[in-house]
Amino acid sequence: MKRVTMGHGAGGEMMQELIAKSIAPFLPKIKIEVPLDSMDDAAIVDDIIFTTDGHTVKPIFFPGGDIGSLAVSGTVNDIAVMGGKPLALSMSMILEEGLEIEVLERVTKSIGNCSELSGVPVVTGDTKVMEKGAIERMIISAAAVGKRHPAMDHNLKVASSYRKVDSRWLTDDNVRDGDVILVSGTLGDHGIALLSFREGYGFESQVQSDCAPLNHMIGKLLAVGGITSMKDATRGGFANAINEWNSKSKVGMELVEKDIPMADAVRNASEMLGLDPLTIGNEGKVIIACVPEMAEEVLKALRSDEHGRNAAIVGKASKAVKHVVMRTEVGGRRILEPPVGDPVPRIC
Amino acid sequence: MKRVTMGHGAGGEMMQELIAKSIAPFLPKIKIEVPLDSMDDAAIVDDIIFTTDGHTVKPIFFPGGDIGSLAVSGTVNDIAVMGGKPLALSMSMILEEGLEIEVLERVTKSIGNCSELSGVPVVTGDTKVMEKGAIERMIISAAAVGKRHPAMDHNLKVASSYRKVDSRWLTDDNVRDGDVILVSGTLGDHGIALLSFREGYGFESQVQSDCAPLNHMIGKLLAVGGITSMKDATRGGFANAINEWNSKSKVGMELVEKDIPMADAVRNASEMLGLDPLTIGNEGKVIIACVPEMAEEVLKALRSDEHGRNAAIVGKASKAVKHVVMRTEVGGRRILEPPVGDPVPRIC
Repeated sequence: MKRVTMGHGAGGEMMQELIAKSIAPFLPKIKIEVPLDSMDDAAIVDDIIFTTDGHTVKPIFFPGGDIGSLAVSGTVNDIAVMGGKPLALSMSMILEEGLEIEVLERVTKSIGNCSELSGVPVVTGDTKVMEKGAIERMIISAAAVGKRHPAMDHNLKVASSYRKVDSRWLTDDNVRDGDVILVSGTLGDHGIALLSFREGYGFESQVQSDCAPLNHMIGKLLAVGGITSMKDATRGGFANAINEWNSKSKVGMELVEKDIPMADAVRNASEMLGLDPLTIGNEGKVIIACVPEMAEEVLKALRSDEHGRNAAIVGKASKAVKHVVMRTEVGGRRILEPPVGDPVPRIC
Repeated sequence: MKRVTMGHGAGGEMMQELIAKSIAPFLPKIKIEVPLDSMDDAAIVDDIIFTTDGHTVKPIFFPGGDIGSLAVSGTVNDIAVMGGKPLALSMSMILEEGLEIEVLERVTKSIGNCSELSGVPVVTGDTKVMEKGAIERMIISAAAVGKRHPAMDHNLKVASSYRKVDSRWLTDDNVRDGDVILVSGTLGDHGIALLSFREGYGFESQVQSDCAPLNHMIGKLLAVGGITSMKDATRGGFANAINEWNSKSKVGMELVEKDIPMADAVRNASEMLGLDPLTIGNEGKVIIACVPEMAEEVLKALRSDEHGRNAAIVGKASKAVKHVVMRTEVGGRRILEPPVGDPVPRIC
């Protein structure tokens, strides 16, 4: 009998297969602007943008964040990277009987702070309790709704002045040959900080979770213009996100390894643990595709924001290659594959 | 140290206190049409109606439904009872490692069927896995978005022709002296069927869960017109719902016990188990307040629908009383209080 494994909960190929085989086929087919099948960061129906994320992070408090800030940032960012303006959040909390009320309040305060920071209110919620042992402490499933960001018209007008743009939103299928690829900062921080803290490896003194709502920063980028697609590099990390662009936009990616921003602690920890940091989840980083003519402007805008200080151009979309090809620091080339399972479980 | 108890997960006063003390105060205050503080079935922001529900039902399959049909019906009904037209659903699934894929598929099929039945598509989702023992089988947090139902203008126009109506939506504070109270069918079925099945009491051969999406039926009622408020009597049951009207609309309720529809099996089981069936959750029943002039028309429309066959008028809002006062079958009067904790845990 086939069973669910931890790998099915990762952002990689196993999860996509589970959804493709055991979930999507049983749901009615519908025609909306961005449907479930497109497996984008959020869906769009009747010009409402809508997303959900379940959070099972362990432990619930970690260096740089907690399950509350994760729940807000995760959904806010999913809306923002699609070119949406998040309007409201819902929180469904499942609590373990016996959980200290103090702990609940600490998480709720964090939700409140992060909600204030992002300017997106929690408007509705639900609370359930399961018996001691039936669930580990607490999980939160957040959902968010939004509308198209007012700066999207300008953003796409700028892009369209250089090349044809097919989508009204920043969908995964919108990257074209020649688009420049940027990342908003160092990669792998969240996963490594959490893993290190959980297992006591000690790297967490040097690296913290990057967990943050990025909607304000993204709004500034849209005001610059020329962005054609955007993703937050959460579960499955950068490797998964860039491969989704590759497969859905049907264009190769040429990356330069040395240009990818990474904290030394993340590099060292990954080496020690035998992990590829590019497959590790981030919670406050976006990858951006934009028309080449606007790349320097977008980079400048990124770097002027506190969440984009370490932003960099890391490569370009290119029909000269088929897959995601990375020029390595030693002068070789390797194909960057999406992760299959989950290198670091329960980090979000 | 204060801790979360099972009672905090019920729909009653303990949960409301938890939300009022440990959740709501830490979230930024916002001004929207129907905010979190109003504790309505759904929130309304920028004319988008939005709701969420977590489902921890045990067992996940039960007579008349399963966790999948619950997840769809619960959120669809929350939108519909506010006068909204549900447009789209999200599903956040948390799975236990080792869960049979067959079980997941059975639940997904049920989500699909119920989605088809209601005409509301699942447009986005999330899947997480927790280690064996860290969660019991599976939980689903669903969210739904909608817009104002097109028939709401007509509905409120009819109501306004008889008395002043203050809300554009069917909010809990919209009931007025003289409004007639209806229920759409027998009460207590879901909770008793589930409890009986779980504990092996044997009543489940006579009573099944009423779990169903009610949006089509509610659409028909709005087309009749004159409805001023509506609630689905889920956690905390009828007793909780009617008391919310009482406190938020600041008007008393006079009910006639013998007019409240109830299956014999529910009555007998409740008596045997020492439960008040009016405090037990329903998943396919609504309570309706309407202007008295339209009550018979609304009742007729209810009874013409498969989900409203046993509908009845059960009383009226009345400033002559302060609380929810029920005329009992033996000729006495009792105050129907909202449940404090949870008479039957984990039924939704």
